[in-house]
Amino acid sequence: MLLEAVYHRPKLNWSYAYDLETIHLRLRSKRNDLTEVFVFAGDKYSWDDSKKLVPMSKLVSDELFDYWECAIKPPLRRLKYGFLLKSGDEQIWMTESEFTKDRPQIPDRLYEFPYINPADLYSVPEWVKDTIFYQIFPERFANGDKSNDPEGTLPWGGEPTRVNFFGGDLQGVIDHLEHLSELGITGIYFTPIFEGSTNHKYDTTDYMKIDSQFGDTETLKKLVQACHERGIKVLLDAVFNHSGNTFAPFLDVKEKGAESRYKDWFYIRDYPLDIVDGSLTYDTFSFEPLMPKLNTANPEVKQYLLGVAEFWIKEIGIDGWRLDVANEVDHQFWRDFRKVVKGVNPDAYILGEIWHESSGWLQGDQFDAVMNYPFTDAVLDFVVHGTLDAKGFADAIGKQISRYPLQATEVAFNLLDSHDTPRLLTLCEGNKNKMKLAALFQFTYSGTPCIYYGSEVGLDGEMDPGCRKCMEWDQDKQDRDLFDFYKKLISVRKELAPLRTGTIQFLVAEAGDTRLAYERKLNGETVIVLLNNDDKAQTLEVRSHGKSWKDAISGQAYGETEGKLSVTLPSYGFAVLREA
Amino acid sequence: MLLEAVYHRPKLNWSYAYDLETIHLRLRSKRNDLTEVFVFAGDKYSWDDSKKLVPMSKLVSDELFDYWECAIKPPLRRLKYGFLLKSGDEQIWMTESEFTKDRPQIPDRLYEFPYINPADLYSVPEWVKDTIFYQIFPERFANGDKSNDPEGTLPWGGEPTRVNFFGGDLQGVIDHLEHLSELGITGIYFTPIFEGSTNHKYDTTDYMKIDSQFGDTETLKKLVQACHERGIKVLLDAVFNHSGNTFAPFLDVKEKGAESRYKDWFYIRDYPLDIVDGSLTYDTFSFEPLMPKLNTANPEVKQYLLGVAEFWIKEIGIDGWRLDVANEVDHQFWRDFRKVVKGVNPDAYILGEIWHESSGWLQGDQFDAVMNYPFTDAVLDFVVHGTLDAKGFADAIGKQISRYPLQATEVAFNLLDSHDTPRLLTLCEGNKNKMKLAALFQFTYSGTPCIYYGSEVGLDGEMDPGCRKCMEWDQDKQDRDLFDFYKKLISVRKELAPLRTGTIQFLVAEAGDTRLAYERKLNGETVIVLLNNDDKAQTLEVRSHGKSWKDAISGQAYGETEGKLSVTLPSYGFAVLREA
Repeated sequence: MLLEAVYHRPKLNWSYAYDLETIHLRLRSKRNDLTEVFVFAGDKYSWDDSKKLVPMSKLVSDELFDYWECAIKPPLRRLKYGFLLKSGDEQIWMTESEFTKDRPQIPDRLYEFPYINPADLYSVPEWVKDTIFYQIFPERFANGDKSNDPEGTLPWGGEPTRVNFFGGDLQGVIDHLEHLSELGITGIYFTPIFEGSTNHKYDTTDYMKIDSQFGDTETLKKLVQACHERGIKVLLDAVFNHSGNTFAPFLDVKEKGAESRYKDWFYIRDYPLDIVDGSLTYDTFSFEPLMPKLNTANPEVKQYLLGVAEFWIKEIGIDGWRLDVANEVDHQFWRDFRKVVKGVNPDAYILGEIWHESSGWLQGDQFDAVMNYPFTDAVLDFVVHGTLDAKGFADAIGKQISRYPLQATEVAFNLLDSHDTPRLLTLCEGNKNKMKLAALFQFTYSGTPCIYYGSEVGLDGEMDPGCRKCMEWDQDKQDRDLFDFYKKLISVRKELAPLRTGTIQFLVAEAGDTRLAYERKLNGETVIVLLNNDDKAQTLEVRSHGKSWKDAISGQAYGETEGKLSVTLPSYGFAVLREA
Repeated sequence: MLLEAVYHRPKLNWSYAYDLETIHLRLRSKRNDLTEVFVFAGDKYSWDDSKKLVPMSKLVSDELFDYWECAIKPPLRRLKYGFLLKSGDEQIWMTESEFTKDRPQIPDRLYEFPYINPADLYSVPEWVKDTIFYQIFPERFANGDKSNDPEGTLPWGGEPTRVNFFGGDLQGVIDHLEHLSELGITGIYFTPIFEGSTNHKYDTTDYMKIDSQFGDTETLKKLVQACHERGIKVLLDAVFNHSGNTFAPFLDVKEKGAESRYKDWFYIRDYPLDIVDGSLTYDTFSFEPLMPKLNTANPEVKQYLLGVAEFWIKEIGIDGWRLDVANEVDHQFWRDFRKVVKGVNPDAYILGEIWHESSGWLQGDQFDAVMNYPFTDAVLDFVVHGTLDAKGFADAIGKQISRYPLQATEVAFNLLDSHDTPRLLTLCEGNKNKMKLAALFQFTYSGTPCIYYGSEVGLDGEMDPGCRKCMEWDQDKQDRDLFDFYKKLISVRKELAPLRTGTIQFLVAEAGDTRLAYERKLNGETVIVLLNNDDKAQTLEVRSHGKSWKDAISGQAYGETEGKLSVTLPSYGFAVLREA
């Protein structure tokens, strides 16, 4: 047994309450090293009377490790526990302080799960698990009201630059909701719509005002109401890490310097607010003078921004917030933010923009989920860049699952492109088959998938500004095959619950191979997904569970032979098998 | 290189801000596996211009692992980083997603320290680092006012039981402060003094009232003032996990059942509040019907208890709170508690009672420190039980240091006995030499040492009630040799700053050996501590740094020979060497 590989630590992904009755415990070991793992658990105050061995099962694996898990429902909501590790005939006990050959005699030295406190429960909105998101960059989606076009607005469909405008607005979205409904969309994430000077509006001038180029509060109200009538939830973008340099408090400091009553609203190193000897005298997002960092620890700033968060939920009934540059804002702020937001809408979805490991924000006190860019990376590395083989991909997904409590995985925001990345089709160098394969995984995996506006009809584009092209509304110029594919994927996901919240087990995922198969299970219902990530046909063989199967996408039927199911997929082919 | 042993993860002990400018990064590897480790770090938004390699040094080791650390001061308070691991000629790079042979080209895949937000800084009270604590169990320390003795008070010095009373009170403490000052004490931790029915008062009847057996608010005021005049800080015990069953809200629920307006103050499973079929109908501390668990998530309860926390600081000027059964209370409560307490006294010490790994509470948002029972275990295992050899002991201490941000170690509450354990002298089976050796480590290690009342004059006793004997005030019956020893230890600790906040490095700590030597360094000042944990004399040899040395305890001088220092210690002997 490689003891150096064995890991458990209280809290985080290793021990957490899944609901008010259930504790999940996890342990990591070297891949293929242990044959059996048990939790040795009991009540912390009546150890001898309650202690028992509970088997753990293998949750996932990654390149180096296996991750074991079990769920325990302690009647008194508290536990002491250790582990029993087995590898063939060898066995060893593990406590908080040591590994021992002998069964631990001193329960005080075991681990503890002190009490399932309801206030600490990581509780996420159920609806997110069933939602299909669509991201809209309002300036480029549709121009529904020429009267609010900014000066110098260019004809729709021109070449996007970092500074030009095409007149997209909220009325345009209202006008095209049927496109989303036809596709099957049930949630929209809007990049910022509050007043700002740029086309992306990430430099807020006024958090309480809809940018007049987009409409006004009434337009937003109309839009959200129309969405809700169609069963579409609405998420707005909270840009609270920084304001714009046209934000009144910033202008005040710019003018009055240290005399300004707003000087503590920002992180100021020196006056005047400017670039001096090549360095900014105030902290900003990146090195962007347009975006002064807000001092979210200042009670006035906090009160103002939390008021903003509350206002748009109360006033308009939005269904959640996406939080821009979320990891650069202090945790205390987000904890208070969660209290305020969940206070006015317990079902609101709080989605942080974090591109990295996000455990520090996914413990129940801050976000429900993060924009899952590590997911994006894994899918692209496998399907698009070819830098991961099937095993490498399964390992990457396994690692992601292992990192977080199950709740985080269930409502993770899984995207393949956005306003901050090249378009998926462009990444695929125009290869639609690859694009479809990437999307297939996205829609058959846990979490909430999100389509970046227009990718469903073949919009392409490099990194910003290329990825922020005007939406194509001429159906003749839309890729309707791609649209139909996404529509089908969405309907299959909606129909088959295991694709949304089932467990995942990789069935075929070999090193050096491009074939991938995995099984998703929920309440006895099984779905098997097969992918051929190669430019020639390949055959995959998986267990059939003694049943016949049918591809939910193509409708093709597959019979089993001697407990096996053999499926030949064309180049970049796939199948989503449900019981026939 | 054993990659399975390599560990780093953002946050916790692995990456944290030590102050507003400094980030500490740590990495774990298999013991004696890596020869060099570097952090590969730069600004997250100007990676190419700022990236550099920063060497890490070995912080500590434990049985299986080495822990590497470095401190970085990024001018823009933010980092992207990875690691470069070297073992002889072999080298490998480590990012958030993988190990690679080649230098990582995509900074996006590195780790991130997003921004040093002042609001998230784990900031601890400086004074605690220099404080010598003394724990007082008020009912058993001194009877200074016969008029408040409860009915049936027994003569001072009788056999303690779980239910009897000896009349100890706050006036008694006031009367004996000179004893503490003579010893060198600069902080007192009082077990509960609020009204309760038991002798230990962990079953609170009224949080706003001093138990009349102990005195009243005026007595406490007098006591705290007298302490402050002597430079002694005062910590009270906040028993907020549960109340007593004589607490008015509980009595109300007991009487009115589901009709009581206080029913949501507790965790009630059924009515009436009682034991039914051997089970309690309400959650309690342990299985103690006297101690109903408080619903600290209930805003009314929270407001009440936070009001209590604030009141005694404002009214009396106490210097902090010790939090009973702290890990069974929700994190949200403690976060609000910290805000309230630090709001009225930014220098207050918040000390949680947690016997286990406490990372979840030691991140800056909840406690300053915990009662360090794992420290107790390690010292007792080495000095008293002999279940750890010198190497095992050094490993256990190394593991503890590795677990937490440095701040937590610097103000850890290091105790060797308490009202919840047998007395140290009893654990040592009366062997004073062993007891002294244990105390020697306690007073020459980081954190704040605490003496349990009377242990300094030879009080003994088994687990509660034995360990809660009346204090011995007859000097003829006190062990004055022990008292003088503690007094000396305290004065040496006060004199030698490295003993308080210096780095620690073990110089002699071999497997199967009972000799221990370690070096503590601070700002160029070095102290070398030598211990002989054996019943026969032994010689230790350590590096001399080309200097002569003098034992701060005995005054004995030691010269160096060829860069070495050779010290022969008698049975259970020790030396605390400072530069001569």
